[in-house]
Amino acid sequence: MKLFSFWRSLATYRVRIALNLKGLTPEVIEVNLLKGHQREPKFRAVNPMMAIPALVDGDGPALFESLAIIEYLDETHPNPPLMPKEPKARARVRGLSQIVACDSHPLIVPRVREYLAHEFKVDEAGVMKWAQHWHQAALSALEEHLSTEKETGTYCQGDQITMADICVASQVAGANFFKVDLAPYSRVARIAGACMKNDAFARAHPLKQPGAPAAA
Amino acid sequence: MKLFSFWRSLATYRVRIALNLKGLTPEVIEVNLLKGHQREPKFRAVNPMMAIPALVDGDGPALFESLAIIEYLDETHPNPPLMPKEPKARARVRGLSQIVACDSHPLIVPRVREYLAHEFKVDEAGVMKWAQHWHQAALSALEEHLSTEKETGTYCQGDQITMADICVASQVAGANFFKVDLAPYSRVARIAGACMKNDAFARAHPLKQPGAPAAA
Repeated sequence: MKLFSFWRSLATYRVRIALNLKGLTPEVIEVNLLKGHQREPKFRAVNPMMAIPALVDGDGPALFESLAIIEYLDETHPNPPLMPKEPKARARVRGLSQIVACDSHPLIVPRVREYLAHEFKVDEAGVMKWAQHWHQAALSALEEHLSTEKETGTYCQGDQITMADICVASQVAGANFFKVDLAPYSRVARIAGACMKNDAFARAHPLKQPGAPAAA
Repeated sequence: MKLFSFWRSLATYRVRIALNLKGLTPEVIEVNLLKGHQREPKFRAVNPMMAIPALVDGDGPALFESLAIIEYLDETHPNPPLMPKEPKARARVRGLSQIVACDSHPLIVPRVREYLAHEFKVDEAGVMKWAQHWHQAALSALEEHLSTEKETGTYCQGDQITMADICVASQVAGANFFKVDLAPYSRVARIAGACMKNDAFARAHPLKQPGAPAAA
């Protein structure tokens, strides 16, 4: 198994957590997003979207998109499960995950921040405000779900870690990068805190990866 | 079953196609995105993300996020299946779907276009260019997958309709709204064309919904 990864990528962080939870240790190949290596032909042949993560498992083309990869890992390595069994519970876990991976994270990835800076001449403070705004929108929605719905337990869906917790952990890591105050999102912060006590989450954190700057 | 819907919403279009394919006919409740009804407290209580679609099925809170809802419908109403059975095939279908629902569509929804116009004072031409840019990025990636990988058939994954085709159809509908030239994406266009011959897709189209303007 080969994982195309970069320390700072939040989507790859999600996949690293899942791999750690499943006890899998793929070869890691760095794709330096800050140097634009994702746009080089060699990587474009791996993932035409020019994004990470990508995962090669045996034959055939690379798997792509973080949530698709996590569900693949869960289907091929069922223990411990990262999805509940009951359809409504599965829908809630996927829905919470997609608030992160669809509604929020795609708006703050490097290619989008670069477009704002280059095409619209948005300054650094404007890009920061943009990133904070979309983080806050997702965090508010997550907080509302997690603080009002009876399905919430120690983790997002009861007391077992699911894909939703992986996504919440990545959302909180992103919020910290972009200096978003987590005080209004106490349930989100509590769940992310519970996750970070788990070594599979802690070891996967962006700042623990090769190439990462020393933590502030 | 109740579907919160608006004619123009591409994410709701995806869910409408799935409902039609499954032969389900929920009550439809309009949430007028152009009038900001998604931000009213009454709808916020349904979906804290203030986005559609949302689907109520029996007891409990509404289901949210289009791909989560589609997989729920597939798990609870298995025929015809919208997902293949083999894990790598499932990962490819989910990955193609997420190119649409994560990498592209979230960048062009009303709330994002409004932010660009109000906060960054981007003019209409600039917003159009932005929307076209992210459409093209996703269409290029989809075209590369669909034209080079042997899994592609009449549809994205062989000769059966899957969730990926639903997403491709919504991407092409969005590309038409934003006047993106589809000529460079011939395999995408061919698959979307095959889908539109299916009544479940055709009836679900945004321009066929109550409130839609007469087609140009």
